[in-house]
Order: sequence, then structure tokens, then C-alpha cells
Amino acid sequence: MPELRHDPIQKRWVIIATERGLRPDEFPRTSELKPNGLCPFCEGNEDKTPPEIRAFRSNGRGPNQPGWQVRVVPNKFPALRIEGELNRRGLGVHDWMNGIGAHEVIIETPRHDLAMADMSAEELGQVILMYRERLQDLMRDSRFKYVLIFKNHGPAAGASLSHPHSQLIATPVTPLTLAGELISAKQHYHGKERCLFCDVISQELESGERVVLSTDRMVAIAPYASRFPFEVFLAPRQHQHNFAELSDDMARELAATLGEVLRRIKVTLSDPPYNFLIHTSPNTRTKPKRTAYWDTIEVDYHWHIEIMPRLTGIAGFEWGTGFYINPTAPEEAARYLREAEL
Amino acid sequence: MPELRHDPIQKRWVIIATERGLRPDEFPRTSELKPNGLCPFCEGNEDKTPPEIRAFRSNGRGPNQPGWQVRVVPNKFPALRIEGELNRRGLGVHDWMNGIGAHEVIIETPRHDLAMADMSAEELGQVILMYRERLQDLMRDSRFKYVLIFKNHGPAAGASLSHPHSQLIATPVTPLTLAGELISAKQHYHGKERCLFCDVISQELESGERVVLSTDRMVAIAPYASRFPFEVFLAPRQHQHNFAELSDDMARELAATLGEVLRRIKVTLSDPPYNFLIHTSPNTRTKPKRTAYWDTIEVDYHWHIEIMPRLTGIAGFEWGTGFYINPTAPEEAARYLREAEL
Repeated sequence: MPELRHDPIQKRWVIIATERGLRPDEFPRTSELKPNGLCPFCEGNEDKTPPEIRAFRSNGRGPNQPGWQVRVVPNKFPALRIEGELNRRGLGVHDWMNGIGAHEVIIETPRHDLAMADMSAEELGQVILMYRERLQDLMRDSRFKYVLIFKNHGPAAGASLSHPHSQLIATPVTPLTLAGELISAKQHYHGKERCLFCDVISQELESGERVVLSTDRMVAIAPYASRFPFEVFLAPRQHQHNFAELSDDMARELAATLGEVLRRIKVTLSDPPYNFLIHTSPNTRTKPKRTAYWDTIEVDYHWHIEIMPRLTGIAGFEWGTGFYINPTAPEEAARYLREAEL
Repeated sequence: MPELRHDPIQKRWVIIATERGLRPDEFPRTSELKPNGLCPFCEGNEDKTPPEIRAFRSNGRGPNQPGWQVRVVPNKFPALRIEGELNRRGLGVHDWMNGIGAHEVIIETPRHDLAMADMSAEELGQVILMYRERLQDLMRDSRFKYVLIFKNHGPAAGASLSHPHSQLIATPVTPLTLAGELISAKQHYHGKERCLFCDVISQELESGERVVLSTDRMVAIAPYASRFPFEVFLAPRQHQHNFAELSDDMARELAATLGEVLRRIKVTLSDPPYNFLIHTSPNTRTKPKRTAYWDTIEVDYHWHIEIMPRLTGIAGFEWGTGFYINPTAPEEAARYLREAEL
């Protein structure tokens, strides 16, 4: 069973998951894909994954059979386990709980070589509908405070299998990164009765210099204080706090926008490694039902997607300060991305 | 001139330093050392660096001449610039200031191949005395809120030159990471009138299972909630908030301890890439003289060194949550490090 341990100095949670454990001489020295061979995510190899949690299928066949468009399976080496109680406990200055949560893999397509950037809007739309469905489902479990959906593309961004897939991890505590965003959003709202994210979006749309792409209902910008070169922030123009409440129409528009942003990044930067993360509101069904963050969460938080090409490394300065050094002005990045020939 | 930009959502500062700028097709795809050639940090090549700020020399020759033991020069591509005013400014939801600060390189030895792990205690002691002196000097500049001293060892940890060197960056704002630690320390002190770090150290010394090494005045432990496999926390056993107040005796003992920890890491993990960071109290001479963090800083903060071998990567989950997944239990890591044959 993995453990969740809390650091009293930096107030962060760490998952100690020794089942993935390596002896000191076994850590790989470079990030690379697992050797080719039978791909467990390809159509026809459904028996090579743990039994599926959910799939979209149009051919009427049963679970764990070919014929799916998007398929969700438990991670074979889960960082957190679904069964059990948290059993929260203090150990002197430290805090501990069982590593309870969910860790799922969303196999985005049966086709091994169809990168997300190259999917049709319809194909990508299916992936987004699956994200929404998994979020809705996991938020029924009151043990989970948060569900993070993310994608690692390329070995340098942490992908170990090349077949296109995303992941989700449901956590039993509010992650530090999210807590920080919730506090910023709340402080802004309490002072101004406006959503911080709506304010950022309208300021960016007005200036235009950092806008990568905007449609009727979505906008993609290079954030003013981008940590990484060519980072992109993608959000709905209209206020919405919870990704799980996405309408079908919005899901289609998000698919078209996300696909275009990923294509512009791919063309501009020659298919770089990247991570993307969906930031959405925490699970408001958890118990206790109310925490400090929740009194105005529906009006102050605003879901968004952060896309981070991994072109620069993280070293001592970044670890020690939380500052980042970005060698590309976001205005330049936005211009390159806008001008990319698709 | 670099810019400091503030992100209103995650409240972090980013340095936009486009003089280091790269076109989209120029980002290197793998972390690697600059090609061999004339090493600007080697003895005899003093004219290949910007003019030195300080050096320890025993042969009585003038600056920028051979014969030094430790030499400090400005970074040739500084992330922040020493000259100018901050000119703090709001731009709608965003915040901006000039990228004022200091960015120095501490060349640890004239010998190109003498890694820090292989230095004698006396050689490493000279480096530590130089860290102390640079901290003391930069804290006289009331524009600087913080000085981070750090080391990147190996290209995967961000080093671009192989000649042993550390760096320091002085920042005009309190870094987020430090602010978090200061708040934790203060909350603990206000509740208990004890230093949080002293409490962690005494709990660890009592249990012993995560102690890597302890001497009369120093202790090295594998933190209970280590983010990374084989992470080490090194601190004085007696309370001291400011690294710049290190006594000569303590500097010698720190040199012996740090050297031994680095050798144990080198032997156990076959010379892995690593970062280390010195966490010390912020500059209490800045103006305004008092901030929320400072009323009890001398009793609640405790300087320490964080050493992080870079064996695992950072991917979407870590970026999105601030959680980390560590595959090696700190108790195991401490045992391997204790048992390493030096």
C-alpha cells in the first residue's frame, strides 16, 4: 500500500510508492520510452491491461474487446490505491495516511501512432467527453478531494509508453498547487466580486499581444508570467468553475481549440515533449462539506488547461525559490504560435 | 534588462530573460554539457570570465591572476542585473519590476576535475567560507530580500559547464518557496515556542531510522516526506537561523559533513546528477525593515541544506498538484547511504 506523507516545512504531500521501487543502481539515467514490443494500449491487446473501467464503443461488443474509441483502465502501477480507508494519523511533527486514491489511464485512441495533435476534432472530442465522465464519476466518491487529469507527451515529459494516453489521479487531500490557486481566486473575488480568471482573460483579449487563438467560447493565451517558453493557458471565455459541467457543445469547441493549439505547438517547436494539466474545482461533495475555500467557489474559480512544452530544465534556482527563468517572452511565443503554418 | 513578472493565479515570480533567448528551433533536446574546449573556469583562463568579484589567494598576486583557491565571478549570462532600480509597477491584474538582483558563479577549485564530493575537508571548507562571505556582502544591499546559494551537478541537474562551480542569485522579492517555509516555521513557533526544524531534528535523532550521518554539531537525514529518492537534509543540530553567521569551527564541521554526504551519494548512486540548495533566513536589512515573517525569525527559522539527486523526472502530476511520487522509502535511502563503503 502506498503511503501519503506530509512535510511540515514545505507543507507538501509526498506519495511513497515503493512497489515501483528501484535499487540504487537501477534508476535509469536518461528519460526514455519502454522498449518496443507488444503495446498494451493497442487494439487487440485488451487483455494486457487491468480490466477496463469504461470505454466508448460503437460496435456493441462487451468490455475488454476490440472496437473501442477511447478506453479507460486502472494504472498497472498505481501511485494511489482505490481500496481502503485513509486512516489519517499524526506521528510527532509528521502526518501520515494510507495512499488511497485513484490512478487511471485514458487510452485516447486504438491507433498507436495517432498523436493528440493529429486527431480530428471528433476524435479529440471523444477523449474530452471521457475526461468529463471520469471526473463526474470519481467526484461521487467523497473520499476524493481532487481529480487531476493530465497528459505527458514524450519521454522527456515523463511518458514511458508512446501510445497516446492521458492519466488521472484522484487525491484524498487538496493539492498544494490547487489550494494556492483557490486562495488567489478567493482573495480577488472577495475584494472585487469578479473572477480573477475572467479578469485575466478580458485583459488579455483587450491587449491581444499574448493571444494565441480565440473562438466564440474559448481562448488560448501565452500567460504574462509564463514559467516555460511557449506555455499556453486555455480556458472558456464564459465563467465556469467545474470541468465536469462542460456541455456537449463546449466539449466540441474545446476539442477544436485544444487540437489547434497542440498542432501550432507541434509545428512551431518540431513536436516537443509537453505536459498538459486540467485545473478544475475540487470535489464539493467531500466531507466535511465546507472548507475555507468553498464558500464562493462557484463564482471565484474558473477551470483552465495549462500546456507546458518541456524545452528548458529545472535546476537549483527553481527548486530553491519557486521562481522560474524563461528565455522566451510570452509575446514572442504567442506571435510564433499564431504565425505557425498549419 | 531582464523583467520580473508576477503570476496572479499561482502568485509566483518569473524572470523573463530574453538575452538568453532562443528561436523556437534552437532549444536543445537533451540536457548536455557545452562542448569541450577552453574552460573559462580553469586556472590560467581568468581573462575568459567577467572580472572577478572576490577570490581566496594565498600567493599574493592581484585579481584575475592565477593562484586562487576559490574564485567568484559574475555570471556571464545573468538572470538578474545588479545595476538599476526596481521600478515596481502594476499592469492591471499583473505585476512587474525590473530584473534587478545579483547572479554570481562560485568557482570552487582551480582544478577542472575535482568534484565537490572528492575535495578534502579543507578545500570544501574554503568554498563554504566563500559562500558565507558572499552572503554577508550581498545582504548589505537593502534591495535584496533573499540570496539563494545552489549547485547543479551534472547536465541532467542543469549544469552546462563541467568545471566544479556553485551559483548564487540575490532576488528583490521573498521567493515563494522560502515564504512557505517561513510561514510554517512561524506557525509552529507561535503555537509551541519551539523551532519547527529543531523539533524535526530531535525527532529524527531519537528514531534514528532516517539518519544518514550525525556529528557533534551537524546532522544529515533522509526527510520523512522526501520528494526524491535519496534526498538529504543537512542542518546544524543547534539552532541558527542565518547561514551568514556560521562560525569558522562550524564551517569546518559543515565541510566535513557535506563532503561525506556527497561521497556517500556518489558511491551509492554511481555519481548521480544532483542539486543542492542552502535555505537560510531572508535579508533582515531590507526596507521596510519588518514584514509579517520577521518578528520571530531569529528563533523560528533554521538554516539547512537540501541535497536532491535527480533520479526521477517531473511530469504532469507533479506540476499539477505539487505532490511528488517517490519510489524509494527514505528509511531505505538512509540505510543505503549509511552502509555505503567509502
